[in-house]
Amino acid sequence: MVGNFTGKQFVIACFGESHGRCVGVTIDGCPAGLPLSEIDIQRELDKRIPPIPEIVSGRREKDIVEILSGIFNGFTTGAPICTLVWNREAIPSEYDLVKDKPRPGHADYPARIKYGGFSDYRGGGRFSGRITVAFVMAGAIAKKLLGFFDIEVFAYTIEIGRVKLDETLSLEEIRKNTYKTAVRCPNLKRADEMEQSILKAKKEGDSVGGIVECIAINVPTGVGEPIFDSLDADVAKMLFNVPAVKGVEFGAGFKAARLKGSQNNDPYVIRDEKIVTLTNNAGGILGGLSSGMPILVRAAIKPTSSISKEQKTVKLSQMEETVIRVKGRHDPCIVPKAVPVIESVVALVLADHMLRAGLIPRVLKGRK
Amino acid sequence: MVGNFTGKQFVIACFGESHGRCVGVTIDGCPAGLPLSEIDIQRELDKRIPPIPEIVSGRREKDIVEILSGIFNGFTTGAPICTLVWNREAIPSEYDLVKDKPRPGHADYPARIKYGGFSDYRGGGRFSGRITVAFVMAGAIAKKLLGFFDIEVFAYTIEIGRVKLDETLSLEEIRKNTYKTAVRCPNLKRADEMEQSILKAKKEGDSVGGIVECIAINVPTGVGEPIFDSLDADVAKMLFNVPAVKGVEFGAGFKAARLKGSQNNDPYVIRDEKIVTLTNNAGGILGGLSSGMPILVRAAIKPTSSISKEQKTVKLSQMEETVIRVKGRHDPCIVPKAVPVIESVVALVLADHMLRAGLIPRVLKGRK
Amino acid sequence: MVGNFTGKQFVIACFGESHGRCVGVTIDGCPAGLPLSEIDIQRELDKRIPPIPEIVSGRREKDIVEILSGIFNGFTTGAPICTLVWNREAIPSEYDLVKDKPRPGHADYPARIKYGGFSDYRGGGRFSGRITVAFVMAGAIAKKLLGFFDIEVFAYTIEIGRVKLDETLSLEEIRKNTYKTAVRCPNLKRADEMEQSILKAKKEGDSVGGIVECIAINVPTGVGEPIFDSLDADVAKMLFNVPAVKGVEFGAGFKAARLKGSQNNDPYVIRDEKIVTLTNNAGGILGGLSSGMPILVRAAIKPTSSISKEQKTVKLSQMEETVIRVKGRHDPCIVPKAVPVIESVVALVLADHMLRAGLIPRVLKGRK
Amino acid sequence: MVGNFTGKQFVIACFGESHGRCVGVTIDGCPAGLPLSEIDIQRELDKRIPPIPEIVSGRREKDIVEILSGIFNGFTTGAPICTLVWNREAIPSEYDLVKDKPRPGHADYPARIKYGGFSDYRGGGRFSGRITVAFVMAGAIAKKLLGFFDIEVFAYTIEIGRVKLDETLSLEEIRKNTYKTAVRCPNLKRADEMEQSILKAKKEGDSVGGIVECIAINVPTGVGEPIFDSLDADVAKMLFNVPAVKGVEFGAGFKAARLKGSQNNDPYVIRDEKIVTLTNNAGGILGGLSSGMPILVRAAIKPTSSISKEQKTVKLSQMEETVIRVKGRHDPCIVPKAVPVIESVVALVLADHMLRAGLIPRVLKGRK
Repeated sequence: MVGNFTGKQFVIACFGESHGRCVGVTIDGCPAGLPLSEIDIQRELDKRIPPIPEIVSGRREKDIVEILSGIFNGFTTGAPICTLVWNREAIPSEYDLVKDKPRPGHADYPARIKYGGFSDYRGGGRFSGRITVAFVMAGAIAKKLLGFFDIEVFAYTIEIGRVKLDETLSLEEIRKNTYKTAVRCPNLKRADEMEQSILKAKKEGDSVGGIVECIAINVPTGVGEPIFDSLDADVAKMLFNVPAVKGVEFGAGFKAARLKGSQNNDPYVIRDEKIVTLTNNAGGILGGLSSGMPILVRAAIKPTSSISKEQKTVKLSQMEETVIRVKGRHDPCIVPKAVPVIESVVALVLADHMLRAGLIPRVLKGRK
Repeated sequence: MVGNFTGKQFVIACFGESHGRCVGVTIDGCPAGLPLSEIDIQRELDKRIPPIPEIVSGRREKDIVEILSGIFNGFTTGAPICTLVWNREAIPSEYDLVKDKPRPGHADYPARIKYGGFSDYRGGGRFSGRITVAFVMAGAIAKKLLGFFDIEVFAYTIEIGRVKLDETLSLEEIRKNTYKTAVRCPNLKRADEMEQSILKAKKEGDSVGGIVECIAINVPTGVGEPIFDSLDADVAKMLFNVPAVKGVEFGAGFKAARLKGSQNNDPYVIRDEKIVTLTNNAGGILGGLSSGMPILVRAAIKPTSSISKEQKTVKLSQMEETVIRVKGRHDPCIVPKAVPVIESVVALVLADHMLRAGLIPRVLKGRK
Repeated sequence: MVGNFTGKQFVIACFGESHGRCVGVTIDGCPAGLPLSEIDIQRELDKRIPPIPEIVSGRREKDIVEILSGIFNGFTTGAPICTLVWNREAIPSEYDLVKDKPRPGHADYPARIKYGGFSDYRGGGRFSGRITVAFVMAGAIAKKLLGFFDIEVFAYTIEIGRVKLDETLSLEEIRKNTYKTAVRCPNLKRADEMEQSILKAKKEGDSVGGIVECIAINVPTGVGEPIFDSLDADVAKMLFNVPAVKGVEFGAGFKAARLKGSQNNDPYVIRDEKIVTLTNNAGGILGGLSSGMPILVRAAIKPTSSISKEQKTVKLSQMEETVIRVKGRHDPCIVPKAVPVIESVVALVLADHMLRAGLIPRVLKGRK
Repeated sequence: MVGNFTGKQFVIACFGESHGRCVGVTIDGCPAGLPLSEIDIQRELDKRIPPIPEIVSGRREKDIVEILSGIFNGFTTGAPICTLVWNREAIPSEYDLVKDKPRPGHADYPARIKYGGFSDYRGGGRFSGRITVAFVMAGAIAKKLLGFFDIEVFAYTIEIGRVKLDETLSLEEIRKNTYKTAVRCPNLKRADEMEQSILKAKKEGDSVGGIVECIAINVPTGVGEPIFDSLDADVAKMLFNVPAVKGVEFGAGFKAARLKGSQNNDPYVIRDEKIVTLTNNAGGILGGLSSGMPILVRAAIKPTSSISKEQKTVKLSQMEETVIRVKGRHDPCIVPKAVPVIESVVALVLADHMLRAGLIPRVLKGRK
C-alpha cells in the first residue's frame, strides 16, 4: 500500500480512477511566487489529444482542469496545489463482462489478487492509462517551475511499429514539429510512416508499440542524490510508473554494453569557456549526477494490451480456460499519448531534484 | 542531499568511502526471528571475487564482514542491523594526481561541482564501485529473508564485449554454473569467449561492458505498489543506482516496442491447477504488480570508465584542455563483479515490497 | 516546504484554505474491503458544530462531505481516498484590513516572512482552524478502520476557563454525555460551569482556553516504532499540529516529574487471566510502545487568539507600532471544536501504527 | 518496524544496543564544508557524565567517539557521517534474571510481545537510555551546523524531586553555570537542593524525576513546515522519543489553558528596528512556525523506573504474580543525563528544519 505519492521536495499525491468521479493530484513543495493558472495546465493536458482521431481511441477526453487550492492572486502560495479533471464519458457497463476474465497484458489479474476483489475494475480503474492525466497536470507545474530556471524538457516519438527515426534531430525541429504530427514524431516523413503503421494494426484488430525519447536541456551540473536517489534512478523509476513502459536507457544505453571504454567515455573539452563533453554517451548523467550535458533518455512502450483479436484467458470463478475479445474504444497505439506523459514525469523528477540540490529557492521573486 | 537511504519497510542506510575507514550499511525493518550470522553475509561478499584474478583489478578486496548490531542469540531482534567491512588496501596517494583532472566517464567532475570541492575524491570516494559492498551485505540479509518464503533471486551474465548468450538457460544451469565461471555466465562455452574478450581489451588498455540478467522465482502475485512504487519502477531505480548501469528492461523489454499486441500479450492458461501465462514477455510484472510469473529483468553495464589509454580531459584549476591516462588497478570489465550486486539490489527491492504487501509478518516463527 | 502529508502506512495529504474553494484530504494506505460511505464521515464532521451557537463563532459551517475517489460498491478499494468539503460562507473582504497588521497569537507574521508575502492571508488561509476539517474527515476513516479491530478513541473536555473536571469519569459517561453538552465535557455540572465561563469571556470581548483529554481503548500491546517513531512521539506530534495546542502529556504527565519511582511505576498484576497494571501513570505507553492499558493523553489548548479587545501590533509596511481589534466571527473558546479534532488525530496515528505493527491486513474480509 | 531513522533533510539513522557491541548513528544530509572532528562530538558526549558520581549510576560510561565516514581533510564532504562509540563495561549476565519478569515502568513487557521474544533484553537492549548516546553524537553535529548560523541551543534543569527553580534565569547564567552543577541547574542554590533530593531518594532505594527546559536563540522567523511538520510538532516528537519524557509544553504551555486571550497573546512592538513580542507565551512558535522570538520548551521527566524497592510484577512463563527488586547500577535520577540529550534532539530538529526552510545551503563556504 501507500504507493500513490512520490517525490521528496516536490511531492505529488495522486487520486482517482478511470471511471470514478475524477482524476486528481496534489502537489506539495512548489515554491511560493510562481505565476500559475489553469491555462498553464490546460495547455499540457491538451497535448494528450492527437489531431487525427483515427489513431487514438474514440473516447475523446475533453479534460478541463480545475485548480482547487494553492493559488492566490495568480501565484503559488507555498500551500499544496490540488488540481483535478472530472470524468465525463465514463460508460462503466461495458466493462462488467471482463470482470471475471482477466485481459492479457493488463493488471486485471494481479490487481484482483492484491485487493481481494475490492478494486475498481471498470476500465482498469486505478491501473488505467487515464491516471496519467494526473502526471500531466503535475508535470505542467513542474515545467513552469523549471522554465523559471531556463530548463526545458522535450519528449517525442522515435519509433512506432518498427518504423524507426534514424535521422538526427535538431532541437529546433523538435520544438517546431513534435506536436504538428499525430504521432508526435518531429520528422514529418517518418511520422507519416508511423501513422500508416498504426492504421494498419488497427485494421487488423491489433496494436503496435514504440519508443519515446526525452531530452532535458540547461540542467545545471551536480543535480541528483547518490547513492540511492541518483538522477537517472529517479527518472527511470518514474518512467516505469508510466503504464506500458518496459525498458529505459540513458545516452548510449544498451548500446554502451557493446562499446569499448575508449569509445563510450565522453572526453572533456572546453567550448565557449565552458566544460563540455565531445560526445554524450552518458546521456548527461555521471555517477547519478547531471553532468551539465543534456539529459537524454529513451523509454520502450509496449503495444496496447487491449486488442479486438481473440486471446486466451481464464474464467476465474470457474478456473477454466476461455477466450476474450476486448471490446470498447482502444488506442491501436498509445505512444502518441505517452509523449506528453513522459515529458511530464521527467519534468517532475527534475523539479524535485533541483529543489533537493538547493538550486531553487523557497520563494521565487523578481524573475520573469 | 539525503540520498543515502532507500526502501520503505526494509530500509537501508549506507555509509563509507572507497578509501575511508570502512563501507557499511544499516538495515531497518528486518523482521525479528530471522536466523542470521556473519556467515550468511560473508558468503555473498565472497561472490564479488572471481576465481581468475586476471580479469578483475589487482586489488583483491578480502572483505571480512562484521555485524555491529541487531542480532541476538543468532536471530534478528527487530532492531536495526548495522554491518560493515573495514577498508584495508587503500593507497590514497595514487589518486592525488587526478584531483584536478576529471576522469572521463566518472563522477569526478559533477561531484566536484556539487560538493564545492569538499568531496572525498580518493578512488572516486563515495562514487566508487566499492560502495556496492554495502548493497551486497544488505542484499544478503534480504535474500535470507526472501528464502524464508521460498523466493530465490539469480543474476548472471548474458553478454560481455559483444559475446552474446543466445542459448536458453535452465534454472538448473544457472544455479550450477554461474559462479563456476569467472565471468558469471552459466553457459561454459560462452563464458570462455567472454573471458577472452575481456583479456583482449585488457591487453589494449581498454575495457568492455555487457549485460546482466536477473530472475526472481516464487514471487507471489500482487506484489508492488502502484501508482508510484510499481515493482518494476523500484527494481529499475535500484538497478540504476548501481554504478555503470545505463539501461534496464523487463521481459521482452525494448523488443516489445517492435511486437504487435497479439504477439506481446501473455495469454492466460491453467497448468497444474494454477493460472499461468504461456509466455512471459511482461517479465512477471503487469501494471506494476507481480503477475505470479518469474520476474525477469536485464541491466546494461557500460565498459569500465577507467582505462589506461590516453583520453582528453580538462585541467580544472586552469581551465585548459589536457589528457589523462588513468593509472591504478582497474577491472577491464566490471560485469562479473556487478552480477552479485544486481542480485542483491533486486533482492532488496523484493524484500521491501513483500513487507509492503503485508506478505511477511513482523516476527518470523516456526519456519525453517 | 513539503509538510502537508503525514503518516507512513496510513498516509494523509491535506489541501485547501480557509477562504479558498475547499478543504480536502487524500488518504493513501487504507486497506481494501472497509465498508465506507459519506455517512461515516459526515457523522464526525457534524461533531464540530456544538448545539449552542452562542459559544462558537457565528459562522455555522454546514460542511457536506464528498468522496471523490477510492470507494467502489460501498467498500474501500485500496486506492487513495480523496474527500473534501466545499467552502461556502467565505467573506474574504473582512480580512483585507489585517493584511498589513499581524494579529497577535496568529501565524500572520511568520507566514508572511516565510512565504514572501505570497501566502493566502484570508482568514488565516492555510493556518486557519478550518483546516482541521481535513483532520476530521481522515480521522473518520481511521476510526472506522480501528473499529474493525475493536479500538475506540474518545476525546472530551476536562477544563475550560479555569473550570476543572476533577471527578473521575467512567467510559459509560464519556460515551453517553460528551456530545450532549455544548462544551463536550461528559460531566453535566462542570459542563454548565464551563459554558458560563465561555459566555463571560465572550461578553468581555476576550477568550478562554482549556484542556482536552483523549482515551483509546483496546489498543493491543506492542504498537509503536521506537526509537524515533514511538507511539507517544507520533501522537504528540499530531496533537501539536492541531492549531492552539501548547502542551501534551501522557498518563501522569507533568505530575510524574514530582512522583517517586515507587509511586509512578505501574505494577503488573494478573486480572481475568490477562496481564494488566494496577495504575496507569504511563498512560498506556512504555518505551514508546503501547502497554495494553488504555492510551491516555491530554492537550492544553490556548485561549482563542482572535479577540475584540484592542491589542498592540505593528504596521508592517511602515514599520510602526499600532493597535488592532480583530473583527469577524470568532469563537470565544475553541476547546469544544478541538474535541473531535483531537479524537481524529489520535485515531489517525493509531491507524498508522496498527498498520505499521502489522496488526491490520491489507485486505479486510469476513469481519463485521 | 522501521522507526530507527528520522528527519527529512538532516536524517539520522540510529543503531546499537545497551549491551551489544556499540551504539552508533549515521547522519545523511549534512552540508559539505562544515569543519568537523571527533573533538566536536566528544565534547558533547562528555556532558553526559556529571562530576559527582554519587548521583548517577556507578557505571561510568567513558565513551570515546569514532567517526567512520563522511569527513575528509577536516570537513564534512556531503557524504553520510557514521559515528559510534564501542560498548565497554557491558555485564549482560546481571540481566538474565529479569528476562521472565518485566520491570514496572520499563519497555520489557511490550517489547517482548512486539518482537516475539527475540529482542535483546540485556539492560533494556534497544530501549535503554544508553541509546541516547547516538542522539548526542548526531546532536553535536547539528549544533556545529546551527552555530554556523549563530543559532544556539541550551537545555538545563528547572525541577528535580519537587525542588523547583522559580527564579528567572539570564542567558549568561545558563551559559556559565549549567555544567558547573551535577544536576545541570544554572541556579547554584537550587542545584544544591536538587542534589540533596536525589541523594535522599537514592538512600531510600527510590528515584525522582524532574523538568528540563530548553531555549534556542537566533532561530530566524518562518522555520517550520505546517500543516503536519510544524516546528513545535517535530520538536515535541523528538522529545517524546527520549526515554522517560511524559510531557512537553511550549512557552506558557499548560498554563496557557488557564489564561485569557488578552493575557496569553504576545503583542507585537518594535525594538531596535526589529519586530518582537513583549511577552513570549507562544514559546517562539506561532502556527507551527518560528516567530523570531526564542524557542522555549519544557519536558517532564519521570522518575527512573529502575528502583531497588520491591515491586509487583508477573512471571510471564507461568502467568503468576510475583515481585521484583531491580538490581544493577541505576541512576536515582536521570534528569541530569537527560539535559544534554534534550539539547541534542532540539538541535537535531532545528537543523532539519533550517535545511527544509532553505536557510542552509548545500555547501558551506567562506564562513567562520
